[in-house]
Amino acid sequence: MRLRRLSIVYREQTTMTKAFGVVTEKAPLEALEIVRREPGAHDVSIDIAYCGVCHSDLHQARGEWAGTLYPCVPGHEIVGRVTAVGSEVSAFKVGDTVGVGCMVDSCQHCPACDEGLEQYCDNGFVGTYNGTTADAPGHTLGGYSQSIVVSDKFVLKISHPDEQLAAVAPLLCAGITTWSPLRHWNAGPGKKVGIVGIGGLGHMGVKLAHALGAHVVAFTTSESKREAARELGADDVVVSRNADEMAAHANSFDLILNTVAASHDLDAFTALLKRDGTMTLVGVPEHPHPSPNVAALIFRRRAIAGSLIGGIAETQEMLDFCAEKGVVADIEMIDIQDVNEAYDRMQKSDVKYRFVIDNATLQA
Amino acid sequence: MRLRRLSIVYREQTTMTKAFGVVTEKAPLEALEIVRREPGAHDVSIDIAYCGVCHSDLHQARGEWAGTLYPCVPGHEIVGRVTAVGSEVSAFKVGDTVGVGCMVDSCQHCPACDEGLEQYCDNGFVGTYNGTTADAPGHTLGGYSQSIVVSDKFVLKISHPDEQLAAVAPLLCAGITTWSPLRHWNAGPGKKVGIVGIGGLGHMGVKLAHALGAHVVAFTTSESKREAARELGADDVVVSRNADEMAAHANSFDLILNTVAASHDLDAFTALLKRDGTMTLVGVPEHPHPSPNVAALIFRRRAIAGSLIGGIAETQEMLDFCAEKGVVADIEMIDIQDVNEAYDRMQKSDVKYRFVIDNATLQA
Repeated sequence: MRLRRLSIVYREQTTMTKAFGVVTEKAPLEALEIVRREPGAHDVSIDIAYCGVCHSDLHQARGEWAGTLYPCVPGHEIVGRVTAVGSEVSAFKVGDTVGVGCMVDSCQHCPACDEGLEQYCDNGFVGTYNGTTADAPGHTLGGYSQSIVVSDKFVLKISHPDEQLAAVAPLLCAGITTWSPLRHWNAGPGKKVGIVGIGGLGHMGVKLAHALGAHVVAFTTSESKREAARELGADDVVVSRNADEMAAHANSFDLILNTVAASHDLDAFTALLKRDGTMTLVGVPEHPHPSPNVAALIFRRRAIAGSLIGGIAETQEMLDFCAEKGVVADIEMIDIQDVNEAYDRMQKSDVKYRFVIDNATLQA
Repeated sequence: MRLRRLSIVYREQTTMTKAFGVVTEKAPLEALEIVRREPGAHDVSIDIAYCGVCHSDLHQARGEWAGTLYPCVPGHEIVGRVTAVGSEVSAFKVGDTVGVGCMVDSCQHCPACDEGLEQYCDNGFVGTYNGTTADAPGHTLGGYSQSIVVSDKFVLKISHPDEQLAAVAPLLCAGITTWSPLRHWNAGPGKKVGIVGIGGLGHMGVKLAHALGAHVVAFTTSESKREAARELGADDVVVSRNADEMAAHANSFDLILNTVAASHDLDAFTALLKRDGTMTLVGVPEHPHPSPNVAALIFRRRAIAGSLIGGIAETQEMLDFCAEKGVVADIEMIDIQDVNEAYDRMQKSDVKYRFVIDNATLQA
């Protein structure tokens, strides 16, 4: 209702666009009409071709995280084509293929922003959905929509071939969330890198670590994922429930990228790090992990760290790298009308490995 | 009993020395006579002048850690003078002032040993007490004794003035345990370093971080330690029970060196790290710390790490640095006959900040 009123108020200065979202807590996603601002001097208007479906979308839309603002239009793995640019935009032109990830703005004047690490902006970055904005309705609305208007600093160039575009979408969150820690902790030739959890994030972690030249070991709880993980590029696959398989890798990893958000025993993986090795967590568990063993850290100077998505410059670096190496996500394309069912399947890990919405179906 | 028999067997090839130790679990420390091997080609014989009293001594002697071997003679903060050297020893000569820390041997052929990080020896270093040795009685006996024989690779040169010698002893464990992480994580000018816990380790952490040129903040639970911590070299002191004082330092530390082994809330300190900051733990808690908040790590790419004493090369570096800067521990000298009482006081944190045994009192 609020949405409808706002859309009337803003109609004259704005563009209407079809979207899918949640209008109130515990409601399913449904068809909406939302407004997008007219592009300002530094803005880029984008027709969205595809949008990946991230687990965060589900948490936010279903109110599983505190602070969801309604109406909520999720989606932060956005790819599409430029339809208009503001007068001050020089890096993009109409017709360019572009992407938008988890952020659409940041303060641009703190040390983190100065270093190109907008995800750690001291004043808080603006999320692609559920972030604060002057636009109606006062919070950002994401990529489950026909179009979006974004400040040029937060728009990425995509140079993959057109036919790969849908599979590029997940690079904008799942890709950069694994790329950033892999690069920060120097995954590459001569390094042994573990990827824990072979889902949306983990499957990208395996592909990227492999493409970076690291020796990659995939950790999964499912015997059934063993062959699939090898096909993604893992040099070795360990079923983490198998203590003997785990023990064979003791003290051997430079880096373990742990993508599992569910509460689990971190010590089983810490013990596999070599001296000065780091395990980096990228998922926040709903219930705390069991407290990690401090002696396991002390006796080999190991570290447990965290990492959050990635900055705009490194996202561009990752996209360029992936285009050069032919890396994309493994996806299952869906119509927007099937997104609620996709959420249910995602909760059961029944997807290989990322749903991507064909945004043309919003027109239906 | 076992000791007495062994001392008879070995008497002809060995030297008898007076010591203080524990002959069985739950017994107090008492006067003993132990044997030391004759120095081999690579050995250095040392008359021990002083020995610091570390909390580890207490844990080991009282059987609070698993695996104490009896008789147990603790002590790994050893300073004294060389009385004999083996035929292959060139770095030391009779009369030199030297030190021995927590280690007396390691494999010398693993990657850690090759890098001078014997504390992380892949095959396990030999502790100065309770370590495996061919000498009688089959495990090493430490510095609560008149003399010790140590492989030259594990002997340190001391260049402090003679009158500081007793106060140098704690550098061999408390000093290097704080020096190694301070150096590894680049404490120095322009860096803000926190030291949590102002005891035996922490007081050295404050002194060393200050001498390295860092901006040092001491964290203590006791209002009463505020002034003392400033005198040690802290630029600022925070009483960690005071939430407002803590909040004033949010997101500001490059490194926090946490010397507190008792279980406590790590999140209160993690929140004070800036982006890419590290909190390094050097104490193993008897009961686990509450599980650290993962979001606090992820949202600023923070890390929680561990660190163990330090290598021989970096111990020498630390001793030379301290001699140049005039850094020593704050100590309370005791007679060996008072060591049981000193343990009781240490358990109540009733020492500023380290007990050091005058080993001449073993003669009494």
